[in-house]
Amino acid sequence: MKRMPVNFREKFDKFDDHWSPKIIAQMNDYHFKLVKFQGEFVWHKHDDTDEVFIVINGEMSIEFRDETLKLKKGELFVVPKGAEHKPFAEKECEIMLVEPAGTVNTGDTGGSLTAEDDVWI
Amino acid sequence: MKRMPVNFREKFDKFDDHWSPKIIAQMNDYHFKLVKFQGEFVWHKHDDTDEVFIVINGEMSIEFRDETLKLKKGELFVVPKGAEHKPFAEKECEIMLVEPAGTVNTGDTGGSLTAEDDVWI
Repeated sequence: MKRMPVNFREKFDKFDDHWSPKIIAQMNDYHFKLVKFQGEFVWHKHDDTDEVFIVINGEMSIEFRDETLKLKKGELFVVPKGAEHKPFAEKECEIMLVEPAGTVNTGDTGGSLTAEDDVWI
Repeated sequence: MKRMPVNFREKFDKFDDHWSPKIIAQMNDYHFKLVKFQGEFVWHKHDDTDEVFIVINGEMSIEFRDETLKLKKGELFVVPKGAEHKPFAEKECEIMLVEPAGTVNTGDTGGSLTAEDDVWI
């Protein structure tokens, strides 16, 4: 069996769309996903799970109801289960998400920015 | 509540020892850990869980019984549950591990390189 590392740069170069996470790896029942953010997402929450954001390139913000958190390359943040949040990025940035398989990007909010939750790249 | 991002550089600068993972974040029942590797670890496996390696800086190898996988900065690999493996790094490298809380670094092998599994940094 030939094992292959997952290279973030190679994977990011394969897509251009924003707010649409692509799965790159599975660990137990969890998915590692890459996504490009630009502009403003929707307010939402995930009632059943925490969600990890890791900035691979660029910078982004996560708005909470009481403050805005800035995240830059080389930083990680865990959005707790049930916490309303809204991702934002002034310029395009490259993000890795870690969350349970089947987690929907727009959480309880839904709407037009809802992406398929099982797209591998 | 003041939320703080976890900055990998700041966390790595806080320790010098090798093969001793430090927890930086928890997502549900999973831990994100930073660790510095240099030299050769022990053959071991984790019978109950997959284990994710992400190279933050430098490069490392994971020996399997049938091949050796090289991983460099910006690459990720999931070691499947039950797979015997031995991490190796010629020069010091900086790694992030993702695995269930309580996972022991030496798996089923134990021995003198076994680290505490609940050290936060």
